[in-house]
Amino acid sequence: MEKTSCLHFCFISCLVLFIIVGSWYRSSISPLPGYSLQTQKPIDHSAETPHHPLDPLTVKEINRVRTILSSYEPFSFTFPTIHTILLHEPDKVQVLKWRKGDPFPPRKAQVLALLNGQSHVLNVDLDSRRVTGHAINPSSGYPMLSMDDISAASKAPFSNAEFNKSIAARGVSSSDLICLPPSAGWFGPNEEGKRVVKVLCYSKESTPNFNMRPIEGLVMTVDLDTLEVLKFSETGGDIPIPKSTDTDYRYTAQTKEPQMEPLNPISIEQPKGPSFRVEDGHIVKWANWVFHLKADHRAGLVISRVMVRDSENGELRDVMYKGFASEFFVPYMDLDESWYFKSYMDAGEYGLGMSALPLVPLNDCPRHSYYMDGIFATTDGNPFVQPNMICLFERYSGDISWRHSEGLLTDFQIREARPKVTLVARTAASVGNYDYIFDWEFQTDGLINVKVGLSGMLMVKGSPYHQAPNQDAMSGPLISENLIGVVHDHFVTFHLDMDIDGANNSFVNVNLVKERSLPGESPRKSYLKAKRKIAKTEKDAQIKLKLYDPSEFHMINPSKRSRLGNPTGYKIVPGGTAASLLDHDDPPQLRSAFTNNQIWVTPYNKSEQWAGGLLTYQSRGDDTLAVWSERDRSIENKDIVLWYTLGFHHIPCQEDFPVMPTVTSGFELKPVNFFESNPILRAAPAFEKDLPVCRSSASS
Amino acid sequence: MEKTSCLHFCFISCLVLFIIVGSWYRSSISPLPGYSLQTQKPIDHSAETPHHPLDPLTVKEINRVRTILSSYEPFSFTFPTIHTILLHEPDKVQVLKWRKGDPFPPRKAQVLALLNGQSHVLNVDLDSRRVTGHAINPSSGYPMLSMDDISAASKAPFSNAEFNKSIAARGVSSSDLICLPPSAGWFGPNEEGKRVVKVLCYSKESTPNFNMRPIEGLVMTVDLDTLEVLKFSETGGDIPIPKSTDTDYRYTAQTKEPQMEPLNPISIEQPKGPSFRVEDGHIVKWANWVFHLKADHRAGLVISRVMVRDSENGELRDVMYKGFASEFFVPYMDLDESWYFKSYMDAGEYGLGMSALPLVPLNDCPRHSYYMDGIFATTDGNPFVQPNMICLFERYSGDISWRHSEGLLTDFQIREARPKVTLVARTAASVGNYDYIFDWEFQTDGLINVKVGLSGMLMVKGSPYHQAPNQDAMSGPLISENLIGVVHDHFVTFHLDMDIDGANNSFVNVNLVKERSLPGESPRKSYLKAKRKIAKTEKDAQIKLKLYDPSEFHMINPSKRSRLGNPTGYKIVPGGTAASLLDHDDPPQLRSAFTNNQIWVTPYNKSEQWAGGLLTYQSRGDDTLAVWSERDRSIENKDIVLWYTLGFHHIPCQEDFPVMPTVTSGFELKPVNFFESNPILRAAPAFEKDLPVCRSSASS
Repeated sequence: MEKTSCLHFCFISCLVLFIIVGSWYRSSISPLPGYSLQTQKPIDHSAETPHHPLDPLTVKEINRVRTILSSYEPFSFTFPTIHTILLHEPDKVQVLKWRKGDPFPPRKAQVLALLNGQSHVLNVDLDSRRVTGHAINPSSGYPMLSMDDISAASKAPFSNAEFNKSIAARGVSSSDLICLPPSAGWFGPNEEGKRVVKVLCYSKESTPNFNMRPIEGLVMTVDLDTLEVLKFSETGGDIPIPKSTDTDYRYTAQTKEPQMEPLNPISIEQPKGPSFRVEDGHIVKWANWVFHLKADHRAGLVISRVMVRDSENGELRDVMYKGFASEFFVPYMDLDESWYFKSYMDAGEYGLGMSALPLVPLNDCPRHSYYMDGIFATTDGNPFVQPNMICLFERYSGDISWRHSEGLLTDFQIREARPKVTLVARTAASVGNYDYIFDWEFQTDGLINVKVGLSGMLMVKGSPYHQAPNQDAMSGPLISENLIGVVHDHFVTFHLDMDIDGANNSFVNVNLVKERSLPGESPRKSYLKAKRKIAKTEKDAQIKLKLYDPSEFHMINPSKRSRLGNPTGYKIVPGGTAASLLDHDDPPQLRSAFTNNQIWVTPYNKSEQWAGGLLTYQSRGDDTLAVWSERDRSIENKDIVLWYTLGFHHIPCQEDFPVMPTVTSGFELKPVNFFESNPILRAAPAFEKDLPVCRSSASS
Repeated sequence: MEKTSCLHFCFISCLVLFIIVGSWYRSSISPLPGYSLQTQKPIDHSAETPHHPLDPLTVKEINRVRTILSSYEPFSFTFPTIHTILLHEPDKVQVLKWRKGDPFPPRKAQVLALLNGQSHVLNVDLDSRRVTGHAINPSSGYPMLSMDDISAASKAPFSNAEFNKSIAARGVSSSDLICLPPSAGWFGPNEEGKRVVKVLCYSKESTPNFNMRPIEGLVMTVDLDTLEVLKFSETGGDIPIPKSTDTDYRYTAQTKEPQMEPLNPISIEQPKGPSFRVEDGHIVKWANWVFHLKADHRAGLVISRVMVRDSENGELRDVMYKGFASEFFVPYMDLDESWYFKSYMDAGEYGLGMSALPLVPLNDCPRHSYYMDGIFATTDGNPFVQPNMICLFERYSGDISWRHSEGLLTDFQIREARPKVTLVARTAASVGNYDYIFDWEFQTDGLINVKVGLSGMLMVKGSPYHQAPNQDAMSGPLISENLIGVVHDHFVTFHLDMDIDGANNSFVNVNLVKERSLPGESPRKSYLKAKRKIAKTEKDAQIKLKLYDPSEFHMINPSKRSRLGNPTGYKIVPGGTAASLLDHDDPPQLRSAFTNNQIWVTPYNKSEQWAGGLLTYQSRGDDTLAVWSERDRSIENKDIVLWYTLGFHHIPCQEDFPVMPTVTSGFELKPVNFFESNPILRAAPAFEKDLPVCRSSASS
């Protein structure tokens, strides 16, 4: 069969190409002489086999998925466009009982594909080599954009006459043009029944920072399947393209020194190497922690099977089955024709893993970091390597784990302090203009600190103004000449499948209530009282945070008690956050209704992973966390999942131009009565005799 | 005159003693062999002279104050008890115009003293050697407790028959007893007209962690001046003293290894040394920052004259005139006779500097730290050295200053990232059981990150229970056998005298308001709009934070505009926080009414420094920030002070026993349109060739 041979050839050659590209990336991400990769020896992924039921699909397995799909009857005439091939994880019960050396639960893949404008969700059994599940359009929405979609859509305008005319009229050379396809959102029936994208263009003349040079008001609605320009819209022809001056952020392009005294070299040093180990490619062991770490096409990184050692008997105890960034919501606050649709759901629309380019050693991650690759699939179903997309490192920042001094009031002369050393797993996604940095930080005291950092470029709007005459009439402040930083929000919703000492947990709202003392009871008139309330059903756990009606939120195991009788638990500790204020019936908010509360708790359901729905692109909000939670299922003493949304309101400022200093927020997962006592009481202090002896490399 | 000679002798000998003690501390804080001091060469403070108008009083100056007071007529018969001798800072205008080499504005001291039960507030001019101001009982309240007060009060119970009887009945040997005097608060007329303190006792049998062994229910009210036990109260005679087992937190007392794999040595290394300089003892210069840093008896550390270099022209620009922790409020939530009064104001009652014992090198502060001493006065008015109470260090924690990658969607292959290096000034106060860690962290992007960490010991309550039978009836959870961790709050109010490009500033509430689109205007139904409102008077700036009615809070200079016309400014960015929920008419809340809002803005007034009043001890709330603000003075385009309160609700847990892992919260001061663009655009990345070459010291 000629067709099969051709496919086969293409398949093999693509595989070879991607493996080569993977290796090449690894050796080519050094933009400057003097940067060093400092990464461990590259891994040959072509021969890898899985070592754990949660290990991502290997190169060989992705190839097998493609082979199975190639011979699958419904695709015998036309092979679909592959948007995602991911491990279809085994049921939790199978994973929990699996021990190293046991045979694996069946290896399965979940495939999201498009064929003839329809979304296909397939389950593929790798052992029996069969498609075991196949749903067509199970909900509204399409799979995330593929690289091919993005690439094709960005070229579509160039064959449109109106576009070319407009560009010529604005005096832009087409060789200086760069067009990008932001997702179109969903705004009612006009945009249903076909996959559409908006295409916006920029000038890259004299700068790689085209983001700061929008061709304002020009927006094309493009059919992603036919690549036809469905709608050409032009306003703002009088708005100049902002200047390129001072927009280039590359180090090699800087001609002036910064206005500050230079800093001496500084580094986190570990002459004996880091204390963590990565076993079998994905199992991380450090101090009292063990967890499974992997790259994910959509979530960026996924932490699974998190266990911490009991501080008394050393047993490994379950903390979290799975944790990851499930969805984003980034609405911009401008109603213009070329702006209203900007309400991104970056995980489901673009993929945080797909957007995670190789981390820059020494600058994205310190020395002694360990780097991990991602293995994903192309639209042809071929595997490719996303190299160095996760780093893992030990951090000492000068912070104090615990301390106490005595000596002023008592006869004890005590100075005890312990340095805080932590383990960080990091990935950074460059979703178009924005860069999102995700840190999962593990502390020896049992705390997990999750942080999201925002950097990269603003999404900016061209403006006729050089100065800010009347900011009230604009959708954001002027941040450079002819550039408005449009006000927007960022929300990140985390899926936190906590399993405290086993799967069956309860969610407890420990509410601090102000009480008044009884007459004559006390010289005090008021005090706070902690009142514990166990959530029975999902609606009891739909939580909006309130400064003046505060609570702690505990995930506990009601069947596991400490020696004192307290249930073992973890609490979620919000950091500084923001809430979405949009109307609930506004289309973007409807699709991202998972941001209607900061906290939700749902019963564990393997199909409820993605807060904005499995098929997010152009989804209509029919498959979100908010919809699931509305079923109000029982969640007491059940296998339950905690969802937390952190938020940022972003009113831009001049300092965000041309690249933004990182802004960070996060939350903590913190043991409460999980350990019998402080688990790091016996930790050793740092001694001078143990620390490294360093000299300047210049003096070497 | 025999009396003068005697005083003179005492004075000289005390001085010598304290200087010796200071030096001894420096060389004796090493609790274990192998710890290294790593501090710079000790400074001989005896000969120091001031170099800057804001420099703290020197040893010689404190001596001079004492000499002046000794010959001051009203004290000719009895020398008062000195509670504080501090620099009385010159007027701001004098400090601002002073340049190095200029003659100093007159050096003055403020003295808080007690004589015959009255509070004396004195101003002493060191140049004219005269007392230039003298107020007696200017407001309710007394100066902070002195070490002599604390020492004497802790001994007072032992001469009380009831106390001795009770102790004997409980089977406690008096040699195992340790008593401490927590402040009594103020609860109406019964406790007015004399200085009182509550005395509580603990057993130190078999442990230095007496905090975990309260003798519950025994509380003595002691007159601080007569040392008479005014009231003996006993309840809870049936409550056992909690066991000493597993309470000792000292490293040398640990007999078991922690249940975790050991960590390899790790350190922040700078083979060329740190990049900061400390000039003239107090002026810190680093990267683009210059500021004045000093120890303070009450505030712990004070940062003054903070300037950052303009990123365009290199000029030093004003950011903050003065920043410090002004007051604490720590109310416990238990109405019992031995608990109701626990509502501490740690800065004004005990002094954060007074409580700051020497920092532990390598554990409280990393290698390459610089240490600074405090110079305070004893009750006799003699100078003494509080050694190593501040450390200053450069931090690299593996974080990213800014980053952006291109390559997926465009033809640019860009991987730019910059490591974040910061400068931290730290002090740690051990106020009885609690340890408070204060960090002022300076970033090269202009951001100042202020953090408060809580560690040390809980204030715990004895309980008859070994297990937690009915937590609803208790004032907190059981955290060990017979030990309740009583629920409490911590609030820290910061005085932030922002002077953005000069003294006259305005406070702007940039409110994000949800608007609905007009019919037919857009497919979007709602969006956010930033609405700027300048606070005219103090009441406009009494702010309670609201998640669903969010604002940014800017301090701007309305007369200084960027090239784009935006006013230059800084914003305060709250982190995770808590609000006080107590009734406003409850005595503790009345005294700590500065926590009624999270943000306040007052016009600059040199006498309004301490949010709980200058005389805090037993104050009645007549001299607090809330009272000042109620005057509703004009604050638009004026020299104004921002006050921010951060808070923690603390429901203890088992992990807090016997010493608490550090809990941290904070806030940021962040430039908004202060710089023309990102001030660290031109910062260099880290290069391998510049980093240190380290080996393990064990291999040396």
